[in-house]
Amino acid sequence: MAQKPSIPKGTRDFSPSEMAGRNWIFDTIRSVYRSYGYSEIETPSLENLSTLLGKYGDEGDKLLFKVLNSGDAFSGIDYSAYAIGEGSYNSNALSLRVSEKGLRYDLTVPFARYVVQHRDEIVFPFKRFQIQPVWRADRPQKGRYREFYQCDADVIGSTSLVNEMELVEIIDRVFTRFGLNVSIRINNRKILTGLAEVCGFPDKVVDITVAIDKIDKIGLDKVKEEMLARGLSEKAVAVIEPVLLLSGSNSEKIASIKGLLGGGSPSGIVSETGLKGVEEVSELFALIDGAGISNEVVLDLSLARGLNYYTGAIFEVKSLDYQIGSISGGGRYDDLTGIFGLPGVSGVGISFGADRIYDVLSALGKFPSGLTETTRLLFANMGSVPYIVPVAEALRSKGVPVEIYPDQVKLKKQFDYADRKGIRFLSINGTEEEASGTVNIKNLDSGEQRQFPAGDVDSILEFIA
Amino acid sequence: MAQKPSIPKGTRDFSPSEMAGRNWIFDTIRSVYRSYGYSEIETPSLENLSTLLGKYGDEGDKLLFKVLNSGDAFSGIDYSAYAIGEGSYNSNALSLRVSEKGLRYDLTVPFARYVVQHRDEIVFPFKRFQIQPVWRADRPQKGRYREFYQCDADVIGSTSLVNEMELVEIIDRVFTRFGLNVSIRINNRKILTGLAEVCGFPDKVVDITVAIDKIDKIGLDKVKEEMLARGLSEKAVAVIEPVLLLSGSNSEKIASIKGLLGGGSPSGIVSETGLKGVEEVSELFALIDGAGISNEVVLDLSLARGLNYYTGAIFEVKSLDYQIGSISGGGRYDDLTGIFGLPGVSGVGISFGADRIYDVLSALGKFPSGLTETTRLLFANMGSVPYIVPVAEALRSKGVPVEIYPDQVKLKKQFDYADRKGIRFLSINGTEEEASGTVNIKNLDSGEQRQFPAGDVDSILEFIA
Repeated sequence: MAQKPSIPKGTRDFSPSEMAGRNWIFDTIRSVYRSYGYSEIETPSLENLSTLLGKYGDEGDKLLFKVLNSGDAFSGIDYSAYAIGEGSYNSNALSLRVSEKGLRYDLTVPFARYVVQHRDEIVFPFKRFQIQPVWRADRPQKGRYREFYQCDADVIGSTSLVNEMELVEIIDRVFTRFGLNVSIRINNRKILTGLAEVCGFPDKVVDITVAIDKIDKIGLDKVKEEMLARGLSEKAVAVIEPVLLLSGSNSEKIASIKGLLGGGSPSGIVSETGLKGVEEVSELFALIDGAGISNEVVLDLSLARGLNYYTGAIFEVKSLDYQIGSISGGGRYDDLTGIFGLPGVSGVGISFGADRIYDVLSALGKFPSGLTETTRLLFANMGSVPYIVPVAEALRSKGVPVEIYPDQVKLKKQFDYADRKGIRFLSINGTEEEASGTVNIKNLDSGEQRQFPAGDVDSILEFIA
Repeated sequence: MAQKPSIPKGTRDFSPSEMAGRNWIFDTIRSVYRSYGYSEIETPSLENLSTLLGKYGDEGDKLLFKVLNSGDAFSGIDYSAYAIGEGSYNSNALSLRVSEKGLRYDLTVPFARYVVQHRDEIVFPFKRFQIQPVWRADRPQKGRYREFYQCDADVIGSTSLVNEMELVEIIDRVFTRFGLNVSIRINNRKILTGLAEVCGFPDKVVDITVAIDKIDKIGLDKVKEEMLARGLSEKAVAVIEPVLLLSGSNSEKIASIKGLLGGGSPSGIVSETGLKGVEEVSELFALIDGAGISNEVVLDLSLARGLNYYTGAIFEVKSLDYQIGSISGGGRYDDLTGIFGLPGVSGVGISFGADRIYDVLSALGKFPSGLTETTRLLFANMGSVPYIVPVAEALRSKGVPVEIYPDQVKLKKQFDYADRKGIRFLSINGTEEEASGTVNIKNLDSGEQRQFPAGDVDSILEFIA
C-alpha cells in the first residue's frame, strides 16, 4: 500500500521558484558581509547536548531537538530502572542516556563554541558570517517554523564601536539592495541599566523596559500603571516619565537622557553605567552620521530585544513598507565565550530574518524580474539530437543555460514544457535545418523568429540575450 | 566551571579557508547543473520516520538518526509498558512512540517524496538538483562522516537516453572545470540481468557481478572459483568467462556482449532483457560520441554500484590522478516514486562526492589561487575612521572587499592582522594624509607604495586590482 507522503509540521519544501528568491536573499546578504571582510564558516547541525543545554534558559532547553544516540538507541539500556510502579522516574536522566546530541538552536552558541575550540587558528578580531538552518521544537504557526535559516555576522575580540557602525552600514546596504525602506532602531543596555539605577530599582531593568516598550500601544497612563503594578514606587515612575516623553532628534534625545542619568532626575542619582551607555550611543551616532546611511537610524530606548544577553548596543530593524515583526537585529555581548572557557572576549553581531524578508519581498513584489528563469533556450526534440548537441554545448560554454527536450514527443507537449518552465526561446529544427546547417530560434514573447548558421554562436547569443 | 568544547564524532567545523574550497566545489557543480536546465530545490532535514524507514534496507534503518518528539520527549509516555522483568521489550515500538522524525539519510528518497507530494505543481520531465547535508549514524572513520553534503541531480519523468548523455556531459564538464582527469565508467543493469539469464542462474545477478568485480584484484582463476563457490555450475562459469576476458574499444565490447546475450554463448540462451541493455548502452555511447567529452568513458561490466536499486544505466567516476574511491556516480531507476503512490515514473540521476573531491583537489593543489582571499585592502586605524569610511564605502560599492581595522592599536598588531588574513594591500593614513585629502596604499607583496587623492576611486581600484 502506498504511503501518503508528508513532511513534519513546521518544516518546508522549497520549490525551484522559492529557491530562486531565497538564494537571492542569501547571496545578497553574503555578498555584503564579504565586502566588509566577514569570512564564512559552517558548524555541524549536530552539537553535543552539553554544548546546547543551559544556554537558552529553561524554555530554550525544552525547545531543543534531541537526537537518539544511534539507529537503535534503545539497545543496551536497562529500562527497568525507569519503570517504577508509582510512575515517578527521572526523565532527564533517561533523556541524557538515550541522547547526547541535539540539533543546533541558533548560530551564536555554536559560534562561541567554535571560537573557543579553534582559538589558536583564529585571527582576532574575528569577523565571521554563517548562513545555516537551525531547529526549534516550537509550536508551529504562521511564520514560525521548526526548521529555518539564520544569517548571522559577528565580530569577536574587539570593543571598538567601529564594529557597531559597520554592522549598521551592512544592515543599510542589504536593505537598500533589497529595495526595502527600513527603520534601524538602536538602544544600549547600559542606558537601561542606568535608568533602573537612577529610579532606585536597579533590579527592575526588565520590568521598566517591558513597560516602556508598550508606550505606543497603551499610552502614558497605562504604562505608569503597569510600572506601579510591577513594584516600582510613585517616585521611581516620576523619574522614568521624561524618558517616556522623549522626542526630537537622536542628539536631542541623547542630551536629555544624559541629563537624566547624570543626576538631573528627581532622585538626583548619578549612574556611571548609564553615562557610559550614553557615551557609547553618542559616539556610535557620530560614526553613523559619517557613514552615508540611506535608511533612518533612530535611538529607541524601548528596545528590549535580548535583554538578558546583550551588554552594550542593541539593534532592531523594522520594515517601513510592510507590517511585520523585526526583520533584522543584534547587539553586543561582553562574554559569550566565557561559558566555554575563554572569558573576557567581547563580541557584537547581527542576524537577518530570511523568512520574514522573503515574505516582505513577496508581498511588495520586490524580487528582481527574471530571478526564476532557469533556462534561456529550449531545443525541441525532433529526433535530431546529435545535430543539436554541439550548438547547445557552445551556448552553455558561454554561460547560457540551455536544454534539449529529452523525448521525441508531440511538439505541443514540448511547447507546453517551455511555457510552464518560463523558457523564453524555443528552437525547432528538422531535417531541413540539419540539411542546410542552420538553427531556427523563436522568441516566445515577441513571436520573432530567426534562422542562424549552426556555428554562428555569437549571433545566436545576441538574439537570445 | 568552564566546559571543554567539542563536537560530536563524525561531524566537522569548516573554517573560512575550508569554506572557500567547499563553496568553489558547490558553486562549480551548481553552475554546471544550471547550464543544463536543472533547478534547485531544498527539502527539510527532518523527515517523518515513515518516509525514511524501509527505504535503505535493514542496515540503513539502523543508520538513521532519530529525533525525539519534543524537548522533553519522555513526558506522557508510560514507561511501565516497556519494563518487563525478563528484560524483553519491543524497542521499535518504544522507538516509534518517542520519535516520529529522523534526519534525512540521502537526497533521493526525500526527492521521491517531494515529487509525489508536489506532483501537481511540477513540470515534467522534472530536472532538479539539490545540495544539502545528510546524516548517517555510521561508525566514523577517515573520510567517513556522520554529517556530510550530497550534490544530486536527477531528471524524472523521461525515459530518453538523452538524459543519460547529458549527465555524462555534466560529469565531464564539472571535472574539467576542477582540472581533474577522470574515468567515467558505464554499465547497464539489464546486461547484468541478461548475463545471469544466459548462464541459467537468473537469480544470481548479484553473485555474478560481485565476482566479475574482482577480476582486476584476484585474477581469472580465483574469480571462477568464487563463482563456483557462490553456487554457479561449471557450465554457467563457462558462459561468463568470455565476459571476464572482454577487451578492446567500447564498441568491440558491445559487439561481443551482444553476441553472447543473443544466443551465442555455450548455453544458447537468448536474453531479451540483456539485448535491451545492449541496445541502451549502444545508443548511449553513440550519443556520447557526439557530445565532445574530454574524459575517457568506458563500458565496465563489473560496475555493481547500487545494484538493487538501478534498473538501467549505472555510472561511476574515478580519479585518474589520485587513488581514492569513486568520486561521482549514479544511474537509472524505474520506479522510485512507487512507494509513495506514484508508480511507473522513471528517473536517472548522479551525485558528486564533495568530500572526496575536496580531498583530491587539496592533495593535487588544484584549488584556484586567490580562493581564500577574503579582503583586498585593509585601512589601518590611526584614529581617522570618519575620514576613511567614505573611501572604504566607495570601494565596496565597486565590489571590492575592504576592511577598516576596528581598534586604534599598535601598527604592528594591525599589520599582523593583514598578514595572517592574507590581505594584500594596506593603507595607513594619519593627520598628514587627512590634511592633504589623500590616501596612502601599499602593496604588501611587491612593497610598492602610492598616494591617491581620496576621491580618485578609479585609480585606487586600478592599483589594487
